[in-house]
Amino acid sequence: MITLITDFGLKGPYVGEMKGAILTINPEAKIVDITHSITRHNILEGSFVMEQIVKYYPKNTIHVGVIDPGVGTSRKGLIIEGDHFLVVPDNGLATLPLKHIRPVSVYEIDLGKIKKIIGREISSTFHGRDVFGPVGALLDLGYEPSRLGTEMSLEDIIRLDLEPKQRNDSWILKVIYIDDFGNVVLNLEDYEEPNYVEVRGLRIPYRETYGEANIGELLALKGSHDYLEIAVNQGSAKDVLNVEVGDELEVKLL
Amino acid sequence: MITLITDFGLKGPYVGEMKGAILTINPEAKIVDITHSITRHNILEGSFVMEQIVKYYPKNTIHVGVIDPGVGTSRKGLIIEGDHFLVVPDNGLATLPLKHIRPVSVYEIDLGKIKKIIGREISSTFHGRDVFGPVGALLDLGYEPSRLGTEMSLEDIIRLDLEPKQRNDSWILKVIYIDDFGNVVLNLEDYEEPNYVEVRGLRIPYRETYGEANIGELLALKGSHDYLEIAVNQGSAKDVLNVEVGDELEVKLL
Amino acid sequence: MITLITDFGLKGPYVGEMKGAILTINPEAKIVDITHSITRHNILEGSFVMEQIVKYYPKNTIHVGVIDPGVGTSRKGLIIEGDHFLVVPDNGLATLPLKHIRPVSVYEIDLGKIKKIIGREISSTFHGRDVFGPVGALLDLGYEPSRLGTEMSLEDIIRLDLEPKQRNDSWILKVIYIDDFGNVVLNLEDYEEPNYVEVRGLRIPYRETYGEANIGELLALKGSHDYLEIAVNQGSAKDVLNVEVGDELEVKLL
Repeated sequence: MITLITDFGLKGPYVGEMKGAILTINPEAKIVDITHSITRHNILEGSFVMEQIVKYYPKNTIHVGVIDPGVGTSRKGLIIEGDHFLVVPDNGLATLPLKHIRPVSVYEIDLGKIKKIIGREISSTFHGRDVFGPVGALLDLGYEPSRLGTEMSLEDIIRLDLEPKQRNDSWILKVIYIDDFGNVVLNLEDYEEPNYVEVRGLRIPYRETYGEANIGELLALKGSHDYLEIAVNQGSAKDVLNVEVGDELEVKLL
Repeated sequence: MITLITDFGLKGPYVGEMKGAILTINPEAKIVDITHSITRHNILEGSFVMEQIVKYYPKNTIHVGVIDPGVGTSRKGLIIEGDHFLVVPDNGLATLPLKHIRPVSVYEIDLGKIKKIIGREISSTFHGRDVFGPVGALLDLGYEPSRLGTEMSLEDIIRLDLEPKQRNDSWILKVIYIDDFGNVVLNLEDYEEPNYVEVRGLRIPYRETYGEANIGELLALKGSHDYLEIAVNQGSAKDVLNVEVGDELEVKLL
Repeated sequence: MITLITDFGLKGPYVGEMKGAILTINPEAKIVDITHSITRHNILEGSFVMEQIVKYYPKNTIHVGVIDPGVGTSRKGLIIEGDHFLVVPDNGLATLPLKHIRPVSVYEIDLGKIKKIIGREISSTFHGRDVFGPVGALLDLGYEPSRLGTEMSLEDIIRLDLEPKQRNDSWILKVIYIDDFGNVVLNLEDYEEPNYVEVRGLRIPYRETYGEANIGELLALKGSHDYLEIAVNQGSAKDVLNVEVGDELEVKLL
């Protein structure tokens, strides 16, 4: 099984070409579209979505993630092997899913090897179709990662800094995701459930579910992703707080 | 075969998580994405789309619909068994597809039974992933509905009031759907085809196809969904009439 | 394998109904969604996407394309047989994919034959569901095209005029595609790589990859689709040049 997470959008041929490259190598591949609507070039958002996905798929699933602003430069391509496979550019995208797959080895994809196996030119602009998709298809066919790349150290993978920080009695947290409903997800997972959360001078009640707040009212909760989340019942916390993915917020748990 | 109709949007991990929950239970499941772009919390729009879908799928297809503003409250989850299976929250979503599946029995989903079978916690915020998807996967594996819930009366299902009403020589009709093209679908199915339709003082010619009107001109027709529809050839009747799903219109057939 | 390219949008039941019509005829069909977000009625954009797709799928794939503003009129439906099958309305949509499939024969779809085989009425408003999808499913089951239509001459297919034109020392080129990133694709494939491209008085450097230009800067390159492309590194050339698909541009290669 191969899952696909990209920022290609749904309008053009890109997603279809990538699936075609996979199905040409392995016509029996079971491809699962996760999303192709990651905000363009937003590695953090992509990493968050990949993290959620690895938690809900069977072991040995191959997760291909392509948010790749550095395509055509010298950034590496990676195969990370653990409970699942991650096939991604080496730009931080692996940071969050790595926490859940117990990685045992990592390989730098060797474009020469890929080109030789699939017998097709590799463009400098579209590695989703020419590299990452085909690598996913080859792993799905049972190819050993060592035939597709060169082993490297797990220490050398590029990671985003997503540790929650403390300053006096506050947390300095990062917005790691905002969903279509405007719910704001922060990088805090392990915490004692408070009565209130204070953000930008707003005292926000901490609840179990969205429906416990009045319609239009702010609430904080442990979201379905296990992170601290700020929401508005049937509204948008993103709009109320005016934040974007990547922004920092000073947060007190009271 | 399992079809999915939700309001989760295509941007985030939600759809992918729900498919993962299904594929973890049944890796061979054939999942068909219908749409994940139902207007958020719009049960009527979701019900209309489910109705159209059940008409075009083979018998015994399992249709999982999740438009679920009441998640986390005491609203029931349903398995409705007939020519097809419907797996939905009990909030009116089943109203229109019910007309086409000749229902024979209905079960209230028992969260305790589900949790025991799948061995995973059930969140209070995301029953698409934790309840409705898994129930679909289990039905697809051949589980009897009685193992997943408790039988209840078909009479007790919550239904939307979608009967067309008459007032003097007019119909009081509801906008039950507006498609991406701006075509406006009304809740009138059985009628003698008129020469004109009168809405808000506009006398609109009744036609066979969109192309029989001039470009930019209003027309009425029996749409491909078998309901009375108001359209603009290569334009948007929604914009001309300024209506939303759920609005009422007084309509004369002349 | 059946690929689907339409302008139906992702919000409504249309895509789901079309897949249902296919899966009712052939429950084992492997359907690959390419895109359903072609700009409404934009045949040129659809033709470009179909061209890219046929290049990346295995031989004998059945490509069903439905951008069909003339549905319900006398426009023909086509089955084009070559290295791949194209199933499309006869409105120019086949123009660009035809270049890659070495066509050997073409059939005008016979609605009477289709209706007899599938035993279902054919609407005048939705041939994606009632004609093109079912024809794809029947070809996938191994039906000979001659059972579904009447042979006609390849010469008689309607084609868009997409030959690049020369005027003095300039090319008069057409914008055949603009992707989600705002990259502008022009109908010039075979050319000697220049140092600069001049468009609307702008002297644009010609590069190998997007990343070779500074962020926000215009560049020209041979895009991953093999056509001349104008782009802005991490920005939108569409916005800078203010163009739409179908527009003409006078272009000098320097």
